[in-house]
Amino acid sequence: MNIILGIDPGSRLTGYGVIKQEGRKLSYLGSGCIKALAAGDDLGERLQIIFAGVSELILQFQPNMFAIEQVFMGVNPGGALKLGQARGAAIVAATSNNLTIAEYSARQIKQSVVGTGAADKTQVQHMVKSILKLPATPQADAADALAVALCHAHSHDSLAKMSGQATKIVRRRLR
Amino acid sequence: MNIILGIDPGSRLTGYGVIKQEGRKLSYLGSGCIKALAAGDDLGERLQIIFAGVSELILQFQPNMFAIEQVFMGVNPGGALKLGQARGAAIVAATSNNLTIAEYSARQIKQSVVGTGAADKTQVQHMVKSILKLPATPQADAADALAVALCHAHSHDSLAKMSGQATKIVRRRLR
Repeated sequence: MNIILGIDPGSRLTGYGVIKQEGRKLSYLGSGCIKALAAGDDLGERLQIIFAGVSELILQFQPNMFAIEQVFMGVNPGGALKLGQARGAAIVAATSNNLTIAEYSARQIKQSVVGTGAADKTQVQHMVKSILKLPATPQADAADALAVALCHAHSHDSLAKMSGQATKIVRRRLR
Repeated sequence: MNIILGIDPGSRLTGYGVIKQEGRKLSYLGSGCIKALAAGDDLGERLQIIFAGVSELILQFQPNMFAIEQVFMGVNPGGALKLGQARGAAIVAATSNNLTIAEYSARQIKQSVVGTGAADKTQVQHMVKSILKLPATPQADAADALAVALCHAHSHDSLAKMSGQATKIVRRRLR
């Protein structure tokens, strides 16, 4: 059984999604949004809200896996710096709780959840709702974070299968 | 008495410098470099080295003030993202220990320590050595971090003087 915390980082809003993976069964545990902008312009307070928020989620849900979206860097160095700071705060909340970091690009996440790397936001929200059998469509940031967690569940699952196959092949050769 | 921890953040090397301020007297407590590149390419491990390193300095030196260099963002969003992540990790180490963050631009730091915002690295190293009466020139990252701490000491000092003057003026008016 795995509990996966997915994070979609942002300097204003950081989405989170938590899922449980038991064999092939995936279920929803929680999702939402950490609002750093509540601290106004104080950089330290903003980053502390993200760090404390992610730390609290780890305490509450006790995940054994942590996945985060690789960010689209655009062309604005100022924006990339702010996003990097938010990302750094979220990541050290995980690493200081002994979680390792898995990173997935937006393309990988869409490919994994929708089946095409070119999917749009609405399709991601729809598939997240469908896969996790949610009663309503989650908000965009939460859906993105749940999608990262689902992508990690799939990728982790296929990695396990692949290493299982590799073992079988090696065994066959050894006979 | 103030103990000021200055940080010069970087995705590979994070310089630190610790000084003590008693009235007008400034003295050296320690300086050096946190080497995140020791973790190789693993982002989580790298950021954890910075977070744990700064946390350890706070435990060791018990600073009541924290100052960090505002970074030059250049034109490369990828570099800005990496620098942001390192900066975020260092900052939440401070904020999670209840320190507030003071930020100074490279120009402000040079102006404060050397007397001109256009000073070069060698002049900063020379002045840091001279102000703190060090037996040898500190390495560049450590010197930059000590310069941030000195800049905060000066700026904090002049703010205190200014508020002192303001108080005097108000008192005079009240008589």
